[in-house]
Amino acid sequence: MAPSPGDKSPGSGEDARVARTRADVARAALEVLTDERSDAVTHARVAELAGYSKTTLYTHWPSRVDLIALALDALGELPHHDQSGDIRTDLIGELQAFRGGITTMRLDRVLTGMAQWASVEEMREIRDKINASGQGPLRAMLAEVLNGVELEAAVSMLTGVVACPSIMFGTLPDDDVIAASVDIVLRSAKRRGSPKP
Amino acid sequence: MAPSPGDKSPGSGEDARVARTRADVARAALEVLTDERSDAVTHARVAELAGYSKTTLYTHWPSRVDLIALALDALGELPHHDQSGDIRTDLIGELQAFRGGITTMRLDRVLTGMAQWASVEEMREIRDKINASGQGPLRAMLAEVLNGVELEAAVSMLTGVVACPSIMFGTLPDDDVIAASVDIVLRSAKRRGSPKP
Repeated sequence: MAPSPGDKSPGSGEDARVARTRADVARAALEVLTDERSDAVTHARVAELAGYSKTTLYTHWPSRVDLIALALDALGELPHHDQSGDIRTDLIGELQAFRGGITTMRLDRVLTGMAQWASVEEMREIRDKINASGQGPLRAMLAEVLNGVELEAAVSMLTGVVACPSIMFGTLPDDDVIAASVDIVLRSAKRRGSPKP
Repeated sequence: MAPSPGDKSPGSGEDARVARTRADVARAALEVLTDERSDAVTHARVAELAGYSKTTLYTHWPSRVDLIALALDALGELPHHDQSGDIRTDLIGELQAFRGGITTMRLDRVLTGMAQWASVEEMREIRDKINASGQGPLRAMLAEVLNGVELEAAVSMLTGVVACPSIMFGTLPDDDVIAASVDIVLRSAKRRGSPKP
């Protein structure tokens, strides 16, 4: 989109061109990551899809991890469930929304892509941001019934019910497995009693 | 190792040579998969490490998925906990053994490698074999206290506590998170009562 005539933002001229290139390349890198696989995110493939030269890509994003990081930046809002106030309904809804994101946004490939670069510091920050945004509502709901190390365990267990089969086996849990996992956690929390404030 | 003079096994001559090549290449492919990453499992890299020509590798294992399948075949016994008879101790021990396998055998890379090829039928069979062997003891223990869809959910939840952080974040759960996840499941099973026989 051309800047409007009154546009005095720092994004005009040279900067705007860089920002546009960045957005185009990020979108293309995300497309390769989710449509193909993280192996496929190479300078050659992303340059081809974005319509820029490989030289341009190498100048701004010298390594493959830069391209993966750029792709993750373009990911946008993760899917969440609109909360009803009933914790069982909302936990099930949140896990179903996550499952939906695996289908529509190919979050399994995003997760695997992140995992492959887990040892790179730059990737760790992006991953933490995505995880905080992805797990936030689940964690907040579980904090109403669990705390401390059991809260950590429960977040990991419920995330795992959806993420693990998709990453490990390429399958997704049925509604009844999702509901059963929520019931296991809630029944356990009930037996333990409310967390201390 | 040279066959002993009395060796009349079907593995002699031509067959023995093929079997030896297969074992050498499988070991090299597994080494590349676990020391590097599944992207690195290429005919060129495995041939170099195994000391065979690329042509030999292409002749016997034409595709990259063949090389990954061969690597998984060479994986050997998965680590398990020696059972004591106390279910809490044994579930915790089993998850700790799985965590140990991620460190020593790089099972996280094995799992990610399998996941990248999840849609290939040949890989599905190998994966099911590895999963049955890996999850067998955990499933048998949980079947003493849960059944039906809750048994499936619990297997997935406890596997997820160990596998998910390692695949998604490159981290491993502490002993107290493992114990807390076992406690959540066992407390829940207690509240529900014993499964029907």
